Amino acid sequence: MLVHHLYSGGKDSSLSAWILKRLGYEVELVTVSFGTLDNWRFARETAERLGFEHRVLYLSKEILETAAEMAIREGHPNNAIQFIHERALEALASLPEVERVSDGTRRDDRVPLLDLPKARSLEDRFGVAYIRPLLGLGYRTIRELTGKLFVVEVRESEELEKADYEVELRHLLRERGIDPLTIFPRSHYQSRVLGWKE
Amino acid sequence: MLVHHLYSGGKDSSLSAWILKRLGYEVELVTVSFGTLDNWRFARETAERLGFEHRVLYLSKEILETAAEMAIREGHPNNAIQFIHERALEALASLPEVERVSDGTRRDDRVPLLDLPKARSLEDRFGVAYIRPLLGLGYRTIRELTGKLFVVEVRESEELEKADYEVELRHLLRERGIDPLTIFPRSHYQSRVLGWKE
Repeated sequence: MLVHHLYSGGKDSSLSAWILKRLGYEVELVTVSFGTLDNWRFARETAERLGFEHRVLYLSKEILETAAEMAIREGHPNNAIQFIHERALEALASLPEVERVSDGTRRDDRVPLLDLPKARSLEDRFGVAYIRPLLGLGYRTIRELTGKLFVVEVRESEELEKADYEVELRHLLRERGIDPLTIFPRSHYQSRVLGWKE
Repeated sequence: MLVHHLYSGGKDSSLSAWILKRLGYEVELVTVSFGTLDNWRFARETAERLGFEHRVLYLSKEILETAAEMAIREGHPNNAIQFIHERALEALASLPEVERVSDGTRRDDRVPLLDLPKARSLEDRFGVAYIRPLLGLGYRTIRELTGKLFVVEVRESEELEKADYEVELRHLLRERGIDPLTIFPRSHYQSRVLGWKE
């Protein structure tokens, strides 16, 4: 029972990976990259510290460019992040060896999040099972479990070393002369999983 | 970390109980009864076979009567089942010793299922965490895990020995001279968890 789990190195995707393992799955972590930066290395580093297999899945830079255009047009990154996540799930689910895909999306997330018709469509189009270990958990439960499991570094910073879609999207915006702060809400605190507790 | 888990003895609520335990929770199973039948005993029997603590939570018969009136008026049991489930969660969450409530509702269920505002409202009104281990799993994943874990008895029967809300609701309808088959869809196969595999 091998599951391919979309992984950023953050708390949510790390907690999801742990849950999948507790359910008896063999877990391979997969970090998406558009090849414009090597920030996927932060996810690999955390994956190694947690003892999981890890691979990088390269997506076409056109997807990132389309997402950047959406973010610029709308003045907000939500639909762009959602667009990238759907393409990432499809790319992963379309690999011939993949039977189960997973991610760390949560009940209380607005994006990225697949609604029920989209979740079923992903499963039907690609013949995979789509597993979201955190979907039934609220923020209180997620905080309780991550606090018990992980050593987390919280830093006040514009951009922590992290491997989520946002980093390459911000980078592309900057390359086009656009200040990401005009599009992304300013977030003061970022967190990163450093390893297991104890 | 004690969680009180609404339990019918069926596959979904048994799988959820197992997941909660794997996540490190101490699990107490809770079966709702309106006191009109003792079919909660089937849930207790399965709970004992699986090695979980179990208690019965008695709800007012008025709730069952209101649900029966809804089912009769609407000619369909969906809203009645949803109504009972919400009252069951509230009754459980309102107990002073309860900090976490859980159930076996699934992504692909139509009822009973709390939408996001209702789930958050339950947490906020009663100061509890609400955990749904199966919400992020599709039918394929649930089948895979239950098939690995449980010995299940499948029988062709109108009513297997089970402890879900439906049994007491059907019973009350019959007492009022109404054939449940005019309201409930006919389901030929029912399943019951008998114990752990191996």
